[in-house]
Amino acid sequence: MAIKAPFQLLMLLGIISLASSLSVSSRHDQENPNPFLFKYNRFQTLFENENGHIRLLQRFDKRSEIFENLQNYRLLEYNSKPHTLFLPQHNDADFILAILSGRAILTVLNSNDRKSFNLERGDTIKLPAGTIAYLANQDDKQDLRVLDLVIPVNKPGQFQSFLLSGSENQQSFLSGFSKNILEASFNADYEEIERVLIEEREKEPQHRRDLRDRRRHQSSEANVIVKVSREQIEELSKNGKSSSKKSASSESEPFNLGNRDPIYSNKFGNFLEITPEKNPQLQDLGILVNAVEIKEGSLLLPHYNSRATLIVAVVEGKGEFELVGQRNENQQDQREVDEEEEEEEQDRSRQVQRYRARLSPGDVFVIPAGHPVAVSASSNLYLVGFGINAENNQRNFLAGEEDNVISQIHRPVKELAFPGSAQQVDRLLKNQKQSYFANAQPQQREEESQRKRGHVSSI
Amino acid sequence: MAIKAPFQLLMLLGIISLASSLSVSSRHDQENPNPFLFKYNRFQTLFENENGHIRLLQRFDKRSEIFENLQNYRLLEYNSKPHTLFLPQHNDADFILAILSGRAILTVLNSNDRKSFNLERGDTIKLPAGTIAYLANQDDKQDLRVLDLVIPVNKPGQFQSFLLSGSENQQSFLSGFSKNILEASFNADYEEIERVLIEEREKEPQHRRDLRDRRRHQSSEANVIVKVSREQIEELSKNGKSSSKKSASSESEPFNLGNRDPIYSNKFGNFLEITPEKNPQLQDLGILVNAVEIKEGSLLLPHYNSRATLIVAVVEGKGEFELVGQRNENQQDQREVDEEEEEEEQDRSRQVQRYRARLSPGDVFVIPAGHPVAVSASSNLYLVGFGINAENNQRNFLAGEEDNVISQIHRPVKELAFPGSAQQVDRLLKNQKQSYFANAQPQQREEESQRKRGHVSSI
Amino acid sequence: MAIKAPFQLLMLLGIISLASSLSVSSRHDQENPNPFLFKYNRFQTLFENENGHIRLLQRFDKRSEIFENLQNYRLLEYNSKPHTLFLPQHNDADFILAILSGRAILTVLNSNDRKSFNLERGDTIKLPAGTIAYLANQDDKQDLRVLDLVIPVNKPGQFQSFLLSGSENQQSFLSGFSKNILEASFNADYEEIERVLIEEREKEPQHRRDLRDRRRHQSSEANVIVKVSREQIEELSKNGKSSSKKSASSESEPFNLGNRDPIYSNKFGNFLEITPEKNPQLQDLGILVNAVEIKEGSLLLPHYNSRATLIVAVVEGKGEFELVGQRNENQQDQREVDEEEEEEEQDRSRQVQRYRARLSPGDVFVIPAGHPVAVSASSNLYLVGFGINAENNQRNFLAGEEDNVISQIHRPVKELAFPGSAQQVDRLLKNQKQSYFANAQPQQREEESQRKRGHVSSI
Repeated sequence: MAIKAPFQLLMLLGIISLASSLSVSSRHDQENPNPFLFKYNRFQTLFENENGHIRLLQRFDKRSEIFENLQNYRLLEYNSKPHTLFLPQHNDADFILAILSGRAILTVLNSNDRKSFNLERGDTIKLPAGTIAYLANQDDKQDLRVLDLVIPVNKPGQFQSFLLSGSENQQSFLSGFSKNILEASFNADYEEIERVLIEEREKEPQHRRDLRDRRRHQSSEANVIVKVSREQIEELSKNGKSSSKKSASSESEPFNLGNRDPIYSNKFGNFLEITPEKNPQLQDLGILVNAVEIKEGSLLLPHYNSRATLIVAVVEGKGEFELVGQRNENQQDQREVDEEEEEEEQDRSRQVQRYRARLSPGDVFVIPAGHPVAVSASSNLYLVGFGINAENNQRNFLAGEEDNVISQIHRPVKELAFPGSAQQVDRLLKNQKQSYFANAQPQQREEESQRKRGHVSSI
Repeated sequence: MAIKAPFQLLMLLGIISLASSLSVSSRHDQENPNPFLFKYNRFQTLFENENGHIRLLQRFDKRSEIFENLQNYRLLEYNSKPHTLFLPQHNDADFILAILSGRAILTVLNSNDRKSFNLERGDTIKLPAGTIAYLANQDDKQDLRVLDLVIPVNKPGQFQSFLLSGSENQQSFLSGFSKNILEASFNADYEEIERVLIEEREKEPQHRRDLRDRRRHQSSEANVIVKVSREQIEELSKNGKSSSKKSASSESEPFNLGNRDPIYSNKFGNFLEITPEKNPQLQDLGILVNAVEIKEGSLLLPHYNSRATLIVAVVEGKGEFELVGQRNENQQDQREVDEEEEEEEQDRSRQVQRYRARLSPGDVFVIPAGHPVAVSASSNLYLVGFGINAENNQRNFLAGEEDNVISQIHRPVKELAFPGSAQQVDRLLKNQKQSYFANAQPQQREEESQRKRGHVSSI
Repeated sequence: MAIKAPFQLLMLLGIISLASSLSVSSRHDQENPNPFLFKYNRFQTLFENENGHIRLLQRFDKRSEIFENLQNYRLLEYNSKPHTLFLPQHNDADFILAILSGRAILTVLNSNDRKSFNLERGDTIKLPAGTIAYLANQDDKQDLRVLDLVIPVNKPGQFQSFLLSGSENQQSFLSGFSKNILEASFNADYEEIERVLIEEREKEPQHRRDLRDRRRHQSSEANVIVKVSREQIEELSKNGKSSSKKSASSESEPFNLGNRDPIYSNKFGNFLEITPEKNPQLQDLGILVNAVEIKEGSLLLPHYNSRATLIVAVVEGKGEFELVGQRNENQQDQREVDEEEEEEEQDRSRQVQRYRARLSPGDVFVIPAGHPVAVSASSNLYLVGFGINAENNQRNFLAGEEDNVISQIHRPVKELAFPGSAQQVDRLLKNQKQSYFANAQPQQREEESQRKRGHVSSI
């Protein structure tokens, strides 16, 4: 009996494998997870205190081999309470910031000047690698939430923050220089440099501590996100620029996704997008940024991106996405697969695979180029996405009245390709009066269907 | 005796290794194969029916580490009978199509329009990733043969086809969406969608099958390459554009290699080439496309490409190529070699290695940048090549009257570099009156040589 | 007792690990070496004879994983005696040559023409991949020293030289072609081709050797760097061009770093730099070239590069550099580290690490993007650097009167970020009257400091 067990297991596996090759199989929150979905627990907390937190999403390429082209992209979430400041630092990575909620003042330093920007929901700005910057939440009530696409410059998929000022568990990078170098650089005694610029340790004598403002000391020593007074905020916001209402094409200023007309819009939803062609900050990185609103009970119609891979975060609301891929993508998720074998597998198997998942705020999903996708909203859904390899990207819709790629097919090819006649195909395509966004449970059809079936619900 | 065998083997290996490091060694269809040659059996059949086939060449980087820079390039061969159609599909890869023979109609779909192109031998066109396209063979007699360079966008060296319509063993990607999504997307009952757009399964009741045109049903269900009537072809070819005779620089239209003057031409051969600088479709990919005719008994003179790596397919004829590399390239072919060791080896060994192979139709060979090569034709030879990393590529000829890089050398450097005097070198270089292409067995020299040697043949 | 030992070791390791996470640790010529420093013994000799040598630095990415982005860059040093010639060859790599000392004539061949350039200290030129070139030292007394950044086109980090003429241990690539191909190519007997173009082997009959000029034969057969007479040099230098005094923006001509004003200069040092934006030869490679002179006893003030990684060679003088990184960079140097673990480590640990090393001529050090660095000179120090990923690079200084990024911080943020008050911070920053370069041991401060401390030296 003990010897037989493995055989039974193998048989079972054989049956499953056979089954999955005969019909479309669906993955829905199963044990073996949908590799395109990153639930919120796949973020790792880099920093957290009472003023806010920073979380970094797992590396895409460590999740699955299908994301090899996302190797050098990371997704970061920044969240801070009202009247707080993220202290000055620079990173060895380019950042694209998208403001999800709240009102921020971002200050960017150069050797010769500084610029401050007032940012609000929908504002997007590139922070080039190495830029020293600090970010304040100027709102009295609302949390500041920022989604960052991070593109490291030194090591693929890895980046470092260099903090100008130190704190209890984070040292100022200035403290990395030796006493000699610091004294010569600032032309001052090391004691003074340490006292004025470099954070002190616990070993510091109590009496010197007492000389300084206790409140300030604590808040700054506490951590990298600190409390800041209303007066201080006001000083920061002086001369601050807002995203231009006219142009989305500045070299360094923020642009708002909502300042342009939506590229797709109707009563079921809105689709806002800035492509690399439209914005010089996104151009050399080949990145697009978009924001999609899907109203409760609505559907973003099936479509695919021709070249871009989309990384999409759920900001608000609930819903579901369906992504169509091929069976072997899931197998490639297994790291152990022999490479030769994998290739054969790729070329042989053409079974269609449905990847499906429920969406909640904080979740992230990835839509590779060419893969058809549809998203439905069970409550008002707000998504923000970054597109990689987005230059010359085209979005092809597979249903809907306008911009429907299927309706462009020559009549005789429709006849040859589809089981229905060309007339039947055209009639079917014309049945959907909406474009881009539609009702996820169209009443009319539902009723008709119920009449036909004798009121049996079509779940 | 049993113990001694391994020692004898080691000694033998030692002697071979010693021998190969003392003199130029040649590889000619040996057991340990020439890594630059891909015989036709290195293509894998992706699809085949009575109407045609699709074959994909082995990954270059899986063949040998020397092709690491070809990691994201694949070569695909498409072949279809007269009056056939390759059904609509898109790929997560850019394609560069070169028509080898036959007459095609390629239709390219966008959300808002479609374009059809009449293509014939020498025509080349880029099909950007994600474009839904279908390809008909409009000729009454001739097979359509297409060579495709494939540049995946999602995963290096891997790509997927997304079929809009399904068939027996290939599912439509539409079938990947759930019933709910499909019903909402098309605002129709699932039954109708399935009947009209999605291919049915075996479980389909017989009576419904009978309702439809049997002939059409069979041809479409049979596979992705289907038969198509003359009338249907005519409908497809309406408004079809041909490659422009004037310009080779359209953003999306096909260009013919023969529409420009050959870059090199004489009675022994012709060399046609479109470089990325000349064509916007090839520019961002940095690809060149060329076609070379070498007449029977002729030779493409020794030359090398300064930056481009050429992937060359033998379309017609027979011949031989010789490629000059270095000894260690072959060793790197062994995957087991320790990396550190490999590097030392590279830097130390400078032994010249000849790689030589007979060429037959269907064979593919690769010429890395900087590597000298010569090709001779034993029957009229027609080659089509794709060049990777082709921006600013220069072709330097090492023999021939014109464009001979050796003849540019300063007189005193000729004296120092070569065993002969500068005068002797110049006299030798001037002996070849032809440029680019020459007689592979020059009669005159042959006769003289025979006279000198007393009629001993110089094999 | 024997069993306990491992436990004790583990405890010891634990303590060390704990210690290093509590305070800044410094690495100074320790056993476990500073990964940013490449001492001269990390060059490997590719070739050496009495006329000169060629040395190639170890692959950056084989030294440490932190240099993954330098995978396709190599550093090469060329050194030759007066009146010598490096024989014609081409490489499957782009070269950027920087002349460190001496006077050279570089000849670059094309199929249709040749160009010769007179080069001297500070001259820089790109030699594109595949270009046949030869290099003479035209000086009567001084050695020619050239530093080359090598960017391979075929295989990442690996390149090959193709020698047009052979020698004892280096074969001409022409000898790689078969007798048949050579005879047809040159329309001549193989005997003549061998005698005139291809170097002969030891097996050559003595009598034929005697027919040729012995002196010339020996010098060329000796090796790839050969002696050359004054008359021959003169013939080479005819029509030679020098680097333009006006423009640094030619497509193919050399440019001199000194032809433009230094970007930073005072009595303590000079900083010369050509960025990719300023020069078309460097533009597509995204490379910058710079030369830095730091006077004895002076300091290049702490700064970092926003995007560029600098590879810096010490040409003359002695000094010291300090680089500030993070603790885990050193750990990543261990290849064995599990990748998952490594990532966690990266994200958790923010300990600042000082990397410090003495500099001597021939040493090379690497400064990754974003990493603060300072360099002091104990004798006049002359550095030449290549910057990778240099497009839009910014250099941010952290001390000094002008261009000091810290002084740009808003007053309230200074208060929050630093332990001192904003006034104290400003006073400290103003204490350094110099910019970019300063006195490494400022007298004034030193004296004051001694007065305060009662003449205790501040080592």
